[in-house]
Amino acid sequence: MEVKDKLKIAAIQMKNVNDNDANISAAIEKINEAVRNGADMVVLPEMFSCPYKASNFPIYAQEDKGKNWTALSKAAAENKIYLVAGSMPELDNGKIYNTAYVFDREGNQIGKHRKMHLFNCDYKNGGQVFHESDTLTAGNSVTTFETEYGTMGLMICFDIRFPELSRLMFQRGARMIIVPAAFNMTSGPLWWDLAFRMRATDNQIFMFGCSPARNENASYVAWGHSLAVNPFGEIMKQLDEKEGTLYCDIDFSVIPDMREQSPVIKELRHDIYKVVDLTKESC
Amino acid sequence: MEVKDKLKIAAIQMKNVNDNDANISAAIEKINEAVRNGADMVVLPEMFSCPYKASNFPIYAQEDKGKNWTALSKAAAENKIYLVAGSMPELDNGKIYNTAYVFDREGNQIGKHRKMHLFNCDYKNGGQVFHESDTLTAGNSVTTFETEYGTMGLMICFDIRFPELSRLMFQRGARMIIVPAAFNMTSGPLWWDLAFRMRATDNQIFMFGCSPARNENASYVAWGHSLAVNPFGEIMKQLDEKEGTLYCDIDFSVIPDMREQSPVIKELRHDIYKVVDLTKESC
Repeated sequence: MEVKDKLKIAAIQMKNVNDNDANISAAIEKINEAVRNGADMVVLPEMFSCPYKASNFPIYAQEDKGKNWTALSKAAAENKIYLVAGSMPELDNGKIYNTAYVFDREGNQIGKHRKMHLFNCDYKNGGQVFHESDTLTAGNSVTTFETEYGTMGLMICFDIRFPELSRLMFQRGARMIIVPAAFNMTSGPLWWDLAFRMRATDNQIFMFGCSPARNENASYVAWGHSLAVNPFGEIMKQLDEKEGTLYCDIDFSVIPDMREQSPVIKELRHDIYKVVDLTKESC
Repeated sequence: MEVKDKLKIAAIQMKNVNDNDANISAAIEKINEAVRNGADMVVLPEMFSCPYKASNFPIYAQEDKGKNWTALSKAAAENKIYLVAGSMPELDNGKIYNTAYVFDREGNQIGKHRKMHLFNCDYKNGGQVFHESDTLTAGNSVTTFETEYGTMGLMICFDIRFPELSRLMFQRGARMIIVPAAFNMTSGPLWWDLAFRMRATDNQIFMFGCSPARNENASYVAWGHSLAVNPFGEIMKQLDEKEGTLYCDIDFSVIPDMREQSPVIKELRHDIYKVVDLTKESC
Protein backbone atom coordinates (compact mmCIF):
# COMPACT_ATOMS: atom_id res chain seq x y z
CA MET A 1 0.00 0.00 0.00
CA GLU A 2 1.28 3.43 -0.91
CA VAL A 3 1.90 5.66 2.08
CA LYS A 4 -0.16 8.85 1.92
CA ASP A 5 1.56 12.18 2.49
CA LYS A 6 -1.37 14.51 3.18
CA LEU A 7 -3.24 14.22 6.45
CA LYS A 8 -5.81 16.51 8.04
CA ILE A 9 -5.47 16.02 11.78
CA ALA A 10 -7.51 17.56 14.59
CA ALA A 11 -6.82 18.04 18.30
CA ILE A 12 -9.84 18.32 20.59
CA GLN A 13 -8.84 20.78 23.32
CA MET A 14 -11.71 20.18 25.75
CA LYS A 15 -12.49 20.71 29.42
CA ASN A 16 -13.93 17.89 31.43
CA VAL A 17 -16.26 17.51 34.41
CA ASN A 18 -16.69 15.13 37.35
CA ASP A 19 -18.75 12.70 35.27
CA ASN A 20 -17.17 10.01 33.08
CA ASP A 21 -20.17 9.54 30.79
CA ALA A 22 -20.62 13.28 30.22
CA ASN A 23 -16.93 13.52 29.25
CA ILE A 24 -17.17 10.64 26.78
CA SER A 25 -20.34 12.10 25.24
CA ALA A 26 -18.73 15.52 24.90
CA ALA A 27 -15.63 13.99 23.31
CA ILE A 28 -17.70 12.04 20.78
CA GLU A 29 -19.74 15.11 19.87
CA LYS A 30 -16.51 17.04 19.22
CA ILE A 31 -15.05 14.13 17.23
CA ASN A 32 -18.16 14.12 15.02
CA GLU A 33 -17.79 17.87 14.48
CA ALA A 34 -14.11 17.50 13.55
CA VAL A 35 -14.98 14.80 11.03
CA ARG A 36 -17.63 17.06 9.49
CA ASN A 37 -14.79 19.58 9.10
CA GLY A 38 -12.71 17.06 7.20
CA ALA A 39 -10.41 15.50 9.83
CA ASP A 40 -9.01 12.05 9.02
CA MET A 41 -7.30 11.62 12.37
CA VAL A 42 -8.62 13.02 15.64
CA VAL A 43 -6.66 13.29 18.89
CA LEU A 44 -8.10 13.66 22.39
CA PRO A 45 -6.19 15.16 25.35
CA GLU A 46 -4.56 13.46 28.31
CA MET A 47 -7.07 12.21 30.90
CA PHE A 48 -10.09 13.55 29.04
CA SER A 49 -12.49 11.17 30.81
CA CYS A 50 -11.49 12.22 34.29
CA PRO A 51 -10.43 15.47 36.01
CA TYR A 52 -6.63 15.26 36.38
CA LYS A 53 -6.25 14.44 40.06
CA ALA A 54 -4.39 11.44 41.46
CA SER A 55 -7.28 10.43 43.71
CA ASN A 56 -9.63 10.35 40.70
CA PHE A 57 -7.67 7.81 38.70
CA PRO A 58 -8.75 4.68 40.66
CA ILE A 59 -12.37 5.89 40.65
CA TYR A 60 -12.57 6.54 36.89
CA ALA A 61 -10.35 3.64 35.75
CA GLN A 62 -11.83 1.05 33.35
CA GLU A 63 -10.45 -2.15 31.90
CA ASP A 64 -9.56 -2.68 28.23
CA LYS A 65 -12.69 -3.12 26.12
CA GLY A 66 -14.74 -1.47 28.86
CA LYS A 67 -17.54 1.02 28.31
CA ASN A 68 -15.32 3.95 27.29
CA TRP A 69 -13.14 1.83 25.02
CA THR A 70 -16.21 0.45 23.27
CA ALA A 71 -17.80 3.87 22.74
CA LEU A 72 -14.58 5.28 21.30
CA SER A 73 -13.96 2.30 19.02
CA LYS A 74 -17.49 2.79 17.71
CA ALA A 75 -16.89 6.54 17.17
CA ALA A 76 -13.81 5.73 15.06
CA ALA A 77 -15.66 3.11 12.99
CA GLU A 78 -18.79 5.19 12.45
CA ASN A 79 -16.73 8.15 11.29
CA LYS A 80 -14.20 5.99 9.41
CA ILE A 81 -11.27 7.87 11.01
CA TYR A 82 -8.14 7.20 12.99
CA LEU A 83 -8.84 8.11 16.60
CA VAL A 84 -6.06 8.67 19.13
CA ALA A 85 -8.17 8.44 22.23
CA GLY A 86 -6.09 10.76 24.35
CA SER A 87 -5.65 9.09 27.66
CA MET A 88 -7.86 7.64 30.32
CA PRO A 89 -7.11 5.81 33.56
CA GLU A 90 -6.83 2.09 32.78
CA LEU A 91 -7.42 -0.66 35.35
CA ASP A 92 -5.46 -3.86 34.85
CA ASN A 93 -4.94 -6.49 37.48
CA GLY A 94 -5.37 -4.07 40.36
CA LYS A 95 -3.01 -1.46 38.90
CA ILE A 96 -3.93 1.87 37.32
CA TYR A 97 -2.19 3.24 34.21
CA ASN A 98 -2.42 6.50 32.25
CA THR A 99 -3.31 4.95 28.90
CA ALA A 100 -3.94 6.16 25.35
CA TYR A 101 -5.68 3.92 22.80
CA VAL A 102 -5.53 4.23 19.02
CA PHE A 103 -8.36 2.98 16.78
CA ASP A 104 -8.31 2.62 13.00
CA ARG A 105 -11.06 3.44 10.52
CA GLU A 106 -12.79 0.14 11.33
CA GLY A 107 -12.62 0.74 15.07
CA ASN A 108 -9.87 -1.83 15.63
CA GLN A 109 -7.35 -1.01 18.35
CA ILE A 110 -4.03 -0.56 16.54
CA GLY A 111 -2.07 1.09 19.34
CA LYS A 112 -2.02 1.41 23.10
CA HIS A 113 0.44 3.41 25.18
CA ARG A 114 0.80 3.45 28.92
CA LYS A 115 2.61 6.62 30.05
CA MET A 116 6.09 5.43 30.90
CA HIS A 117 7.43 8.44 32.80
CA LEU A 118 5.11 9.22 35.69
CA PHE A 119 4.72 12.92 36.29
CA ASN A 120 5.57 14.27 39.69
CA CYS A 121 6.38 17.88 40.45
CA ASP A 122 6.97 20.01 43.51
CA TYR A 123 7.39 23.51 42.17
CA LYS A 124 8.19 26.08 44.82
CA ASN A 125 6.77 29.58 45.29
CA GLY A 126 3.14 28.60 44.79
CA GLY A 127 3.77 26.51 41.65
CA GLN A 128 1.97 23.28 40.82
CA VAL A 129 2.42 20.25 43.08
CA PHE A 130 1.29 16.88 41.73
CA HIS A 131 2.23 13.22 42.16
CA GLU A 132 0.95 10.76 39.59
CA SER A 133 2.93 8.07 41.35
CA ASP A 134 0.49 8.25 44.28
CA THR A 135 -1.99 6.16 42.32
CA LEU A 136 -0.50 5.26 38.92
CA THR A 137 1.89 2.60 37.65
CA ALA A 138 4.23 3.38 34.74
CA GLY A 139 4.05 1.54 31.42
CA ASN A 140 7.08 -0.28 30.04
CA SER A 141 6.76 -0.07 26.26
CA VAL A 142 7.79 2.25 23.47
CA THR A 143 4.68 2.70 21.34
CA THR A 144 4.47 3.24 17.60
CA PHE A 145 1.59 2.32 15.31
CA GLU A 146 1.11 1.90 11.57
CA THR A 147 -1.33 3.96 9.50
CA GLU A 148 -2.04 4.87 5.86
CA TYR A 149 0.23 7.85 6.54
CA GLY A 150 3.16 5.78 7.74
CA THR A 151 4.46 5.05 11.22
CA MET A 152 3.37 7.29 14.10
CA GLY A 153 4.82 7.54 17.60
CA LEU A 154 2.60 7.88 20.66
CA MET A 155 3.67 9.25 24.01
CA ILE A 156 1.89 10.95 26.89
CA CYS A 157 2.86 14.33 28.37
CA PHE A 158 5.98 13.97 30.60
CA ASP A 159 7.26 11.25 28.21
CA ILE A 160 8.24 14.08 25.83
CA ARG A 161 10.88 15.36 28.27
CA PHE A 162 13.12 12.33 27.58
CA PRO A 163 14.97 12.55 24.25
CA GLU A 164 15.70 8.83 24.15
CA LEU A 165 12.03 8.01 23.70
CA SER A 166 11.44 10.18 20.64
CA ARG A 167 14.72 8.94 19.16
CA LEU A 168 13.58 5.32 19.52
CA MET A 169 10.34 6.21 17.72
CA PHE A 170 12.33 7.90 14.96
CA GLN A 171 14.47 4.77 14.70
CA ARG A 172 11.28 2.80 14.06
CA GLY A 173 10.44 5.17 11.22
CA ALA A 174 7.95 7.52 12.89
CA ARG A 175 7.09 10.51 10.69
CA MET A 176 5.08 12.18 13.46
CA ILE A 177 4.77 11.76 17.21
CA ILE A 178 1.37 12.38 18.77
CA VAL A 179 1.32 13.57 22.36
CA PRO A 180 -1.83 13.86 24.48
CA ALA A 181 -0.50 16.03 27.30
CA ALA A 182 -1.49 18.32 30.14
CA PHE A 183 1.34 20.68 31.05
CA ASN A 184 0.50 23.12 33.83
CA MET A 185 0.89 26.82 34.59
CA THR A 186 4.50 26.28 35.72
CA SER A 187 5.73 23.74 33.16
CA GLY A 188 3.69 25.17 30.28
CA PRO A 189 5.44 28.51 29.86
CA LEU A 190 8.83 26.93 30.58
CA TRP A 191 8.79 23.79 28.45
CA TRP A 192 5.65 23.20 26.34
CA ASP A 193 6.63 24.88 23.05
CA LEU A 194 10.29 24.11 23.74
CA ALA A 195 9.86 20.35 24.05
CA PHE A 196 7.62 19.99 20.99
CA ARG A 197 9.90 22.18 18.87
CA MET A 198 13.09 20.42 19.96
CA ARG A 199 11.87 16.86 19.53
CA ALA A 200 10.72 17.82 16.03
CA THR A 201 14.13 19.37 15.36
CA ASP A 202 16.10 16.48 16.87
CA ASN A 203 14.37 13.93 14.67
CA GLN A 204 13.26 16.12 11.75
CA ILE A 205 9.71 14.86 12.06
CA PHE A 206 6.30 16.37 12.88
CA MET A 207 5.12 16.67 16.48
CA PHE A 208 1.44 17.04 17.41
CA GLY A 209 0.23 17.87 20.91
CA CYS A 210 -3.29 17.82 22.32
CA SER A 211 -3.91 19.47 25.71
CA PRO A 212 -7.07 19.84 27.77
CA ALA A 213 -8.49 23.38 27.78
CA ARG A 214 -7.58 25.48 30.79
CA ASN A 215 -9.94 25.27 33.76
CA GLU A 216 -8.93 27.83 36.38
CA ASN A 217 -11.21 26.14 38.93
CA ALA A 218 -9.49 22.76 38.70
CA SER A 219 -6.89 21.68 41.25
CA TYR A 220 -4.54 21.03 38.31
CA VAL A 221 -4.70 23.93 35.84
CA ALA A 222 -3.74 22.82 32.31
CA TRP A 223 -1.68 25.07 30.05
CA GLY A 224 -3.66 24.40 26.85
CA HIS A 225 -1.91 25.55 23.66
CA SER A 226 -2.39 22.39 21.58
CA LEU A 227 -0.05 22.60 18.61
CA ALA A 228 1.44 21.16 15.45
CA VAL A 229 5.18 21.54 14.77
CA ASN A 230 7.01 20.84 11.51
CA PRO A 231 10.40 19.08 11.08
CA PHE A 232 12.19 22.46 11.23
CA GLY A 233 10.74 22.92 14.72
CA GLU A 234 8.40 25.68 13.58
CA ILE A 235 4.94 25.95 15.12
CA MET A 236 2.49 25.51 12.24
CA LYS A 237 -0.74 25.96 14.18
CA GLN A 238 -1.50 26.54 17.84
CA LEU A 239 -4.55 27.17 20.02
CA ASP A 240 -4.66 29.48 23.03
CA GLU A 241 -5.82 28.18 26.41
CA LYS A 242 -9.56 28.06 25.69
CA GLU A 243 -11.77 25.19 24.46
CA GLY A 244 -11.47 24.63 20.75
CA THR A 245 -10.38 22.25 18.02
CA LEU A 246 -7.04 22.63 16.28
CA TYR A 247 -7.01 21.60 12.61
CA CYS A 248 -3.77 21.13 10.76
CA ASP A 249 -2.91 19.93 7.25
CA ILE A 250 0.22 17.84 7.57
CA ASP A 251 2.24 17.19 4.40
CA PHE A 252 4.79 14.49 5.15
CA SER A 253 6.42 14.96 1.75
CA VAL A 254 8.37 17.96 3.11
CA ILE A 255 10.48 15.75 5.38
CA PRO A 256 13.15 14.71 2.84
CA ASP A 257 13.58 18.31 1.64
CA MET A 258 13.99 19.66 5.18
CA ARG A 259 16.48 16.89 5.97
CA GLU A 260 18.41 17.89 2.84
CA GLN A 261 18.51 21.61 3.67
CA SER A 262 19.65 20.92 7.25
CA PRO A 263 21.25 17.46 7.26
CA VAL A 264 20.88 16.58 10.94
CA ILE A 265 19.65 13.04 10.36
CA LYS A 266 22.37 12.46 7.78
CA GLU A 267 25.11 13.56 10.21
CA LEU A 268 24.02 11.30 13.08
CA ARG A 269 27.19 9.53 14.28
CA HIS A 270 26.06 5.91 14.29
CA ASP A 271 29.68 4.96 14.95
CA ILE A 272 29.91 7.03 18.16
CA TYR A 273 26.61 6.65 20.01
CA LYS A 274 23.42 4.68 19.92
CA VAL A 275 20.10 4.85 21.74
CA VAL A 276 19.20 1.28 22.61
CA ASP A 277 15.68 0.00 23.33
CA LEU A 278 16.49 -2.31 26.24
CA THR A 279 13.06 -3.94 25.96
CA LYS A 280 14.08 -5.29 22.52
CA GLU A 281 17.89 -5.47 22.55
CA SER A 282 20.37 -6.30 25.25
CA CYS A 283 23.40 -4.12 25.70
CA MET B 1 39.40 18.47 46.70
CA GLU B 2 36.05 20.08 47.35
CA VAL B 3 34.15 20.98 44.20
CA LYS B 4 33.37 24.70 44.05
CA ASP B 5 29.82 25.80 43.26
CA LYS B 6 30.27 29.44 42.29
CA LEU B 7 31.92 30.29 38.99
CA LYS B 8 32.17 33.58 37.13
CA ILE B 9 32.40 32.69 33.45
CA ALA B 10 32.86 34.99 30.46
CA ALA B 11 32.16 34.54 26.74
CA ILE B 12 34.20 36.67 24.34
CA GLN B 13 31.84 37.48 21.46
CA MET B 14 34.38 38.89 19.00
CA LYS B 15 34.67 39.51 15.27
CA ASN B 16 37.74 38.36 13.44
CA VAL B 17 39.76 39.49 10.41
CA ASN B 18 41.82 37.86 7.68
CA ASP B 19 44.94 37.78 9.87
CA ASN B 20 45.64 34.96 12.33
CA ASP B 21 48.02 36.93 14.54
CA ALA B 22 45.69 39.92 14.79
CA ASN B 23 42.87 37.57 15.85
CA ILE B 24 44.99 35.91 18.54
CA SER B 25 46.15 39.31 19.86
CA ALA B 26 42.59 40.61 19.96
CA ALA B 27 41.43 37.47 21.78
CA ILE B 28 44.19 37.77 24.38
CA GLU B 29 43.42 41.44 24.97
CA LYS B 30 39.77 40.57 25.57
CA ILE B 31 40.72 37.66 27.84
CA ASN B 32 42.84 40.02 29.94
CA GLU B 33 39.92 42.45 30.19
CA ALA B 34 37.54 39.66 31.26
CA VAL B 35 39.99 38.60 33.95
CA ARG B 36 40.22 42.19 35.22
CA ASN B 37 36.43 42.00 35.50
CA GLY B 38 36.67 38.89 37.68
CA ALA B 39 36.22 35.97 35.27
CA ASP B 40 37.62 32.62 36.41
CA MET B 41 36.82 30.83 33.17
CA VAL B 42 36.88 32.48 29.74
CA VAL B 43 35.41 31.03 26.56
CA LEU B 44 36.29 32.01 22.98
CA PRO B 45 33.98 31.49 19.99
CA GLU B 46 34.13 28.89 17.23
CA MET B 47 36.87 29.57 14.66
CA PHE B 48 38.01 32.81 16.30
CA SER B 49 41.44 32.67 14.65
CA CYS B 50 40.10 32.42 11.14
CA PRO B 51 37.11 33.81 9.19
CA TYR B 52 34.58 30.97 8.96
CA LYS B 53 35.02 29.81 5.37
CA ALA B 54 35.86 26.26 4.29
CA SER B 55 38.69 27.40 2.03
CA ASN B 56 40.34 29.26 4.96
CA PHE B 57 40.66 26.25 7.23
CA PRO B 58 43.68 24.63 5.50
CA ILE B 59 45.40 28.04 5.28
CA TYR B 60 44.95 28.94 8.97
CA ALA B 61 45.41 25.45 10.42
CA GLN B 62 48.18 24.85 12.97
CA GLU B 63 49.41 21.73 14.73
CA ASP B 64 49.03 21.04 18.45
CA LYS B 65 51.50 23.09 20.48
CA GLY B 66 51.86 25.49 17.55
CA LYS B 67 52.08 29.26 17.80
CA ASN B 68 48.42 29.86 18.65
CA TRP B 69 48.28 27.00 21.15
CA THR B 70 51.37 28.34 22.91
CA ALA B 71 50.07 31.92 23.10
CA LEU B 72 46.75 30.75 24.53
CA SER B 73 48.33 28.41 27.06
CA LYS B 74 50.44 31.36 28.22
CA ALA B 75 47.36 33.61 28.46
CA ALA B 76 45.68 31.04 30.73
CA ALA B 77 48.78 30.67 32.93
CA GLU B 78 49.52 34.39 33.21
CA ASN B 79 45.92 35.12 34.17
CA LYS B 80 45.59 31.97 36.33
CA ILE B 81 42.24 31.10 34.70
CA TYR B 82 40.56 28.26 32.88
CA LEU B 83 40.54 29.10 29.18
CA VAL B 84 38.25 27.33 26.71
CA ALA B 85 40.02 28.39 23.57
CA GLY B 86 36.98 28.40 21.34
CA SER B 87 37.95 26.64 18.20
CA MET B 88 40.63 26.95 15.57
CA PRO B 89 41.50 24.87 12.53
CA GLU B 90 43.90 22.11 13.61
CA LEU B 91 46.33 20.37 11.27
CA ASP B 92 47.18 16.78 12.09
CA ASN B 93 48.74 14.33 9.68
CA GLY B 94 47.44 16.11 6.61
CA LYS B 95 43.88 16.40 7.95
CA ILE B 96 42.13 19.53 9.22
CA TYR B 97 39.83 19.53 12.26
CA ASN B 98 37.63 22.16 13.95
CA THR B 99 39.26 21.96 17.37
CA ALA B 100 38.72 23.55 20.79
CA TYR B 101 41.46 23.40 23.46
CA VAL B 102 41.00 23.83 27.20
CA PHE B 103 43.82 25.12 29.43
CA ASP B 104 43.90 25.15 33.23
CA ARG B 105 45.20 27.87 35.54
CA GLU B 106 48.79 26.70 34.94
CA GLY B 107 48.36 26.69 31.17
CA ASN B 108 48.24 22.90 30.91
CA GLN B 109 45.97 21.47 28.23
CA ILE B 110 43.22 19.60 30.11
CA GLY B 111 40.77 19.16 27.26
CA LYS B 112 40.63 19.03 23.49
CA HIS B 113 37.54 18.54 21.34
CA ARG B 114 37.38 18.01 17.62
CA LYS B 115 33.90 18.88 16.30
CA MET B 116 32.31 15.52 15.67
CA HIS B 117 29.30 16.54 13.58
CA LEU B 118 30.49 18.48 10.56
CA PHE B 119 28.18 21.32 9.64
CA ASN B 120 26.75 21.40 6.18
CA CYS B 121 23.66 23.31 5.15
CA ASP B 122 21.84 24.15 1.95
CA TYR B 123 19.02 26.43 3.01
CA LYS B 124 16.74 27.46 0.18
CA ASN B 125 15.31 30.89 -0.62
CA GLY B 126 18.56 32.79 -0.15
CA GLY B 127 19.47 31.16 3.16
CA GLN B 128 23.00 30.21 4.19
CA VAL B 129 24.89 27.56 2.19
CA PHE B 130 28.03 26.09 3.78
CA HIS B 131 29.94 22.80 3.68
CA GLU B 132 32.50 22.18 6.40
CA SER B 133 33.04 18.75 4.93
CA ASP B 134 34.74 20.35 1.91
CA THR B 135 37.92 20.78 3.96
CA LEU B 136 37.37 19.38 7.47
CA THR B 137 37.51 15.92 9.02
CA ALA B 138 35.21 15.06 11.95
CA GLY B 139 36.52 14.16 15.40
CA ASN B 140 35.60 10.86 17.02
CA SER B 141 35.56 11.55 20.77
CA VAL B 142 33.08 12.68 23.38
CA THR B 143 34.91 15.37 25.37
CA THR B 144 34.55 16.20 29.03
CA PHE B 145 37.17 17.76 31.30
CA GLU B 146 37.68 18.11 35.04
CA THR B 147 37.89 21.46 36.85
CA GLU B 148 37.64 22.89 40.38
CA TYR B 149 33.95 23.36 39.53
CA GLY B 150 33.38 19.72 38.61
CA THR B 151 33.08 18.01 35.25
CA MET B 152 32.36 20.12 32.16
CA GLY B 153 31.27 18.99 28.70
CA LEU B 154 32.72 20.54 25.56
CA MET B 155 31.10 20.49 22.13
CA ILE B 156 31.26 22.71 19.06
CA CYS B 157 28.25 24.28 17.36
CA PHE B 158 26.36 21.65 15.28
CA ASP B 159 27.29 19.03 17.92
CA ILE B 160 24.51 20.52 20.09
CA ARG B 161 21.84 19.37 17.65
CA PHE B 162 22.35 15.72 18.65
CA PRO B 163 20.77 14.83 22.01
CA GLU B 164 22.87 11.71 22.44
CA LEU B 165 26.05 13.75 22.84
CA SER B 166 24.83 15.95 25.69
CA ARG B 167 23.33 12.89 27.38
CA LEU B 168 26.68 11.10 27.27
CA MET B 169 28.30 14.16 28.88
CA PHE B 170 25.60 14.18 31.55
CA GLN B 171 26.28 10.48 32.15
CA ARG B 172 29.91 11.39 32.84
CA GLY B 173 28.75 13.88 35.45
CA ALA B 174 28.91 17.16 33.50
CA ARG B 175 27.33 20.06 35.43
CA MET B 176 27.69 22.41 32.45
CA ILE B 177 28.33 22.03 28.74
CA ILE B 178 30.36 24.74 27.03
CA VAL B 179 29.67 25.32 23.35
CA PRO B 180 31.78 27.57 21.10
CA ALA B 181 29.40 27.93 18.17
CA ALA B 182 28.58 30.01 15.12
CA PHE B 183 24.95 29.61 14.12
CA ASN B 184 23.92 31.69 11.11
CA MET B 185 21.06 33.97 10.07
CA THR B 186 18.91 30.95 9.11
CA SER B 187 19.76 28.50 11.91
CA GLY B 188 20.10 31.18 14.61
CA PRO B 189 16.49 32.35 14.81
CA LEU B 190 15.23 28.79 14.34
CA TRP B 191 17.39 26.78 16.70
CA TRP B 192 19.97 28.74 18.76
CA ASP B 193 17.97 29.50 21.93
CA LEU B 194 15.93 26.33 21.42
CA ALA B 195 18.91 23.95 21.40
CA PHE B 196 20.64 25.52 24.41
CA ARG B 197 17.41 25.64 26.41
CA MET B 198 16.41 22.06 25.58
CA ARG B 199 19.79 20.43 26.26
CA ALA B 200 19.80 22.23 29.63
CA THR B 201 16.27 20.96 30.29
CA ASP B 202 16.96 17.42 29.08
CA ASN B 203 19.89 17.01 31.43
CA GLN B 204 19.04 19.58 34.12
CA ILE B 205 22.46 21.17 33.80
CA PHE B 206 23.85 24.57 32.74
CA MET B 207 24.60 25.32 29.08
CA PHE B 208 26.98 28.09 28.01
CA GLY B 209 27.36 29.25 24.40
CA CYS B 210 29.95 31.58 22.88
CA SER B 211 29.34 32.90 19.35
CA PRO B 212 31.40 35.21 17.17
CA ALA B 213 29.91 38.71 16.82
CA ARG B 214 27.89 39.30 13.68
CA ASN B 215 29.80 40.57 10.65
CA GLU B 216 27.36 41.45 7.86
CA ASN B 217 30.24 41.65 5.38
CA ALA B 218 31.42 38.07 5.95
CA SER B 219 30.41 35.27 3.59
CA TYR B 220 29.11 33.41 6.65
CA VAL B 221 27.11 35.75 8.87
CA ALA B 222 27.09 34.59 12.51
CA TRP B 223 23.97 34.93 14.65
CA GLY B 224 25.75 36.09 17.83
CA HIS B 225 23.56 35.94 20.97
CA SER B 226 26.07 34.22 23.28
CA LEU B 227 24.15 32.96 26.30
CA ALA B 228 24.01 31.15 29.62
CA VAL B 229 21.07 28.84 30.39
CA ASN B 230 20.16 27.33 33.77
CA PRO B 231 18.98 23.73 34.46
CA PHE B 232 15.34 24.86 34.09
CA GLY B 233 16.17 25.90 30.51
CA GLU B 234 15.83 29.60 31.35
CA ILE B 235 18.16 32.10 29.68
CA MET B 236 20.10 33.75 32.51
CA LYS B 237 22.15 36.18 30.43
CA GLN B 238 22.40 36.82 26.70
CA LEU B 239 24.18 39.23 24.37
CA ASP B 240 22.74 40.70 21.19
CA GLU B 241 24.59 40.33 17.88
CA LYS B 242 27.32 42.93 18.48
CA GLU B 243 30.83 42.56 19.85
CA GLY B 244 30.92 42.26 23.62
CA THR B 245 31.73 40.04 26.57
CA LEU B 246 29.02 38.10 28.39
CA TYR B 247 29.59 37.64 32.12
CA CYS B 248 27.58 35.16 34.13
CA ASP B 249 27.69 34.02 37.74
CA ILE B 250 26.95 30.32 37.70
CA ASP B 251 25.86 28.68 40.97
CA PHE B 252 25.98 24.93 40.53
CA SER B 253 24.38 24.39 43.94
CA VAL B 254 20.92 25.02 42.41
CA ILE B 255 21.06 21.79 40.39
CA PRO B 256 19.81 19.39 43.10
CA ASP B 257 16.93 21.72 44.01
CA MET B 258 15.81 22.10 40.40
CA ARG B 259 16.01 18.33 39.92
CA GLU B 260 13.85 17.93 43.01
CA GLN B 261 11.18 20.42 41.89
CA SER B 262 10.98 18.83 38.42
CA PRO B 263 12.28 15.28 38.74
CA VAL B 264 13.29 14.61 35.14
CA ILE B 265 16.63 13.02 35.96
CA LYS B 266 15.01 10.92 38.67
CA GLU B 267 12.39 9.56 36.25
CA LEU B 268 14.85 8.49 33.53
CA ARG B 269 13.89 4.92 32.58
CA HIS B 270 17.24 3.16 32.83
CA ASP B 271 15.36 -0.12 32.39
CA ILE B 272 13.85 0.91 29.03
CA TYR B 273 16.53 2.83 27.08
CA LYS B 274 20.17 3.69 27.24
CA VAL B 275 22.47 6.00 25.31
CA VAL B 276 25.66 4.04 24.70
CA ASP B 277 29.08 5.57 23.96
CA LEU B 278 30.22 3.13 21.28
CA THR B 279 33.80 4.42 21.59
CA LYS B 280 33.89 3.03 25.16
CA GLU B 281 31.33 0.23 25.26
CA SER B 282 30.30 -2.34 22.72
CA CYS B 283 26.63 -2.97 22.23
